[in-house]
Amino acid sequence: MIKETYIESRSNPRIRSYKKLKEKKYRMREKLYLVEGFRLLEEAFKAGKKVHAVLYESGKKEEFARYIAPYAEQTEIIVTENDVIRDLSSTVHPQGVIGVLSLEDASTEEVSFQDTSSELLLYLDGLQDPGNLGTIIRSAHAAGAKGIILGKNTVDPYNEKVIRSSMGSVFHLPIYHQGVETLKKFLDAGYQLAVTSLEAERNIFHEDLTGNLIIAIGNEGSGISEEIEERAAVLLGIPMPGGAESLNAAVAASIVLFERVRQLESGFLK
Amino acid sequence: MIKETYIESRSNPRIRSYKKLKEKKYRMREKLYLVEGFRLLEEAFKAGKKVHAVLYESGKKEEFARYIAPYAEQTEIIVTENDVIRDLSSTVHPQGVIGVLSLEDASTEEVSFQDTSSELLLYLDGLQDPGNLGTIIRSAHAAGAKGIILGKNTVDPYNEKVIRSSMGSVFHLPIYHQGVETLKKFLDAGYQLAVTSLEAERNIFHEDLTGNLIIAIGNEGSGISEEIEERAAVLLGIPMPGGAESLNAAVAASIVLFERVRQLESGFLK
Repeated sequence: MIKETYIESRSNPRIRSYKKLKEKKYRMREKLYLVEGFRLLEEAFKAGKKVHAVLYESGKKEEFARYIAPYAEQTEIIVTENDVIRDLSSTVHPQGVIGVLSLEDASTEEVSFQDTSSELLLYLDGLQDPGNLGTIIRSAHAAGAKGIILGKNTVDPYNEKVIRSSMGSVFHLPIYHQGVETLKKFLDAGYQLAVTSLEAERNIFHEDLTGNLIIAIGNEGSGISEEIEERAAVLLGIPMPGGAESLNAAVAASIVLFERVRQLESGFLK
Repeated sequence: MIKETYIESRSNPRIRSYKKLKEKKYRMREKLYLVEGFRLLEEAFKAGKKVHAVLYESGKKEEFARYIAPYAEQTEIIVTENDVIRDLSSTVHPQGVIGVLSLEDASTEEVSFQDTSSELLLYLDGLQDPGNLGTIIRSAHAAGAKGIILGKNTVDPYNEKVIRSSMGSVFHLPIYHQGVETLKKFLDAGYQLAVTSLEAERNIFHEDLTGNLIIAIGNEGSGISEEIEERAAVLLGIPMPGGAESLNAAVAASIVLFERVRQLESGFLK
């Protein structure tokens, strides 16, 4: 038997405190974030995320039973009305369900640096577009990356647009918040830092990407910061035989990620 | 000496007719479309596009002189005010310049089917997101593709968001509007159609992509239509060793495009 609480009013203090989680400042303070939509929320449960509460619209019992009920014993269930969901939603057409999740900072202490297998992480150096970040996280998850390190001035991955465009992949990858410190720990442990750059002399197709590697992705306009570029073992370029001068940041990251998948599968040939 | 006309009023009949070009229906009827921004418009001139008129805000003389003046003899120049530009703009912060361009349908008669070099085209089969389409056009241009064939239910490439996210690459690639008929002509001329599919048995890394090829990209949700899949010589899959079930449509297209770049550069090895 699922236990449900009913909250009718938008001015309920809990609803008002959840609403503040639409702003990054409050997410950081409360260590909580919001996830909208039945499938995304189901994905969060499947990934083992800690869900504090699920709020759903009283008219959405069927969708609730299908996607959320199997996990409902692990969390608090709040039945509410359309105007409350609208208040918490960031979309034009809310689906009628919002989850309140714990914001977890991955700890480098959990990383086994003794592991000799080939592992990949991404370092995000000032990426600004939420759609790009979500798309990169989705690609990184598909390519088997082991985590995301958040560098300075990078868009918040707990932003609703990032979560949505990641298609839930954001729940599956550890996210390291202490950017440069985390990077240093991995580099000290023997990981190599590779940076994609339009000025690169090395071509990704002729560079061995199969080792323990961190790929840095820069800002959409200004690219990689000097601070990070200085630490790079290699500047990687993607050959562009056509006329365009650059690629979308999420596309460039994904091409490098999947060139690594190819090399791991086929063996790297110089 | 650049000749300039001055239009002050938003209710001027020409301004009102240009404003209608924000809708696809009128773009198709008038065979004209709008381009916003100094750099994008400069890119259109550089690509040799036919620009009917450029409207710029009286306060933007400096930017006009820098980006547009070198091409100003080829087109009509209209000086106007901020509220007129706002009316024609689709962005929150208009840059103060709008171009009116000819919408050109590429003709297959211009294609030399006797050409034995290795050429690539993209077929867009119901792609819906303007950002995805712009990103794909940018990647296709960078990868050296020779054109874009617009299939049924595909978002209009003359939509302002597509133009912007293509970073001007849309001006450089021929766009074929008669989707299926154009596809047939290319297939009759010996091009092979390849379709990316989650159910594919062939892996892009082990498939020769170096010939005359058309890559079809499907709808973000439902994928490739049956009508197009039936014509495919090969269903291509991208190996995903991680946990995500699929990739963003623009990312998947770009990975295939740049695997072809790699094969052309390194030679295809089975």
